Amino acid sequence: MLKYQQIAIDIEKYIEEHALQQRDKLPVLEHLMAQFEVSKSTITKSLDLLERKGVVYQVRGSGIFVRRQSRKGYISLLSNQGFKKDLEEFNVTSEVIELTVCKPTKEAAHNLNIELSSDVYYVKRIRCVNGKTLCLEESYYNKAFITYLNKEIASESIFHYIKEGLGLKVGFSDIYLHVDKLNDEEADYLGLKKGDPKLFMESVFHLTNGQPFDFSKVTYNFEQSQFFLQANSHLL
Amino acid sequence: MLKYQQIAIDIEKYIEEHALQQRDKLPVLEHLMAQFEVSKSTITKSLDLLERKGVVYQVRGSGIFVRRQSRKGYISLLSNQGFKKDLEEFNVTSEVIELTVCKPTKEAAHNLNIELSSDVYYVKRIRCVNGKTLCLEESYYNKAFITYLNKEIASESIFHYIKEGLGLKVGFSDIYLHVDKLNDEEADYLGLKKGDPKLFMESVFHLTNGQPFDFSKVTYNFEQSQFFLQANSHLL
Repeated sequence: MLKYQQIAIDIEKYIEEHALQQRDKLPVLEHLMAQFEVSKSTITKSLDLLERKGVVYQVRGSGIFVRRQSRKGYISLLSNQGFKKDLEEFNVTSEVIELTVCKPTKEAAHNLNIELSSDVYYVKRIRCVNGKTLCLEESYYNKAFITYLNKEIASESIFHYIKEGLGLKVGFSDIYLHVDKLNDEEADYLGLKKGDPKLFMESVFHLTNGQPFDFSKVTYNFEQSQFFLQANSHLL
Repeated sequence: MLKYQQIAIDIEKYIEEHALQQRDKLPVLEHLMAQFEVSKSTITKSLDLLERKGVVYQVRGSGIFVRRQSRKGYISLLSNQGFKKDLEEFNVTSEVIELTVCKPTKEAAHNLNIELSSDVYYVKRIRCVNGKTLCLEESYYNKAFITYLNKEIASESIFHYIKEGLGLKVGFSDIYLHVDKLNDEEADYLGLKKGDPKLFMESVFHLTNGQPFDFSKVTYNFEQSQFFLQANSHLL
């Protein structure tokens, strides 16, 4: 982790510890430089990162303000880390229904940009928050990158393992979502009724070198899931 | 618009005109500098912007690659422009059901950070794509900023008017979403059945100075709406 990334995390901690709210002003640059013992250019880079993350906003000539929203239990749509981090204070558990090495479906092969004859890890899990079913997840991992997986790993955070255990660098992800009705199997797994609403999310996760390594299809329990997103005009 | 922002738009056009696909490589920096007749620092800033937007990804030592996804008709969750732009090639129309100056609800006042005695424009619209109902939208605009609105404006793009007509600078937005079942009124407006699924999205749009100016609640027709999102590891 680079210096400015660490300082960005420290500033987030500062905001939390001081219980700063939306529209509260951060100390001036000079104060932050002194507090964190870093140069102006490092602080500036840290603040730019936090602005992109949606944690602060900068108003020219007036200062830096807190953007933090505090709707608890909402899952970030922008997090590349899986949702475990958003729900840190909750008790997140995973039940592995299936874990196997197999050939990808046509859809998975397309999304992972691999041949139908390649090997993938197929993982089917139910994820629970505080004992309630949050979602049903089916994932296909390209075995060329995710060389090893087992049930113990899959019952925890697979992304944590990919980053810390395998040392891979997670880059970007493409996410597609729509709303539909649950089929019989999904309703069974989620403890809901056939025809109840579902949020269905497909994600393709890439390494920093652009290679897709994970294609996931997640069906969320509509009674247990809420999402947030912080968008920036930089993206216009 | 700054030079590098214009060049970013030009590079996006280049990608489109050359029908470049996911993982296709862009020309090298020197070529882009010559093609667009700009300095290295401008091109670098343009490419950084496009990377943040999810249009390209850069792999150190190997080049710049296209990230563009081409699922047509999907609405970007990160766009601050309303969805009209995503659906450009479709015929988007709006039917204004109600447009009135009134006092905000408690919820709207909280989200707009104004007093209950302030004035807001309340706009209720149905938005259609190719003649099919896309969503039911209820918006509260802070009248201190959005000083004037009428039915003609509301039947087109209100955001276009806010930016071009009123000259306001749209900054960032906070978006919250969850899935639920339609009530009677919503089902009526959307031409669906009570109890059918809905995606419900609340958005708070801010000016660049941090002032919230629009609180919107949108109920999407699940049969007509699909969403995408391109996330970056920069945000970790």
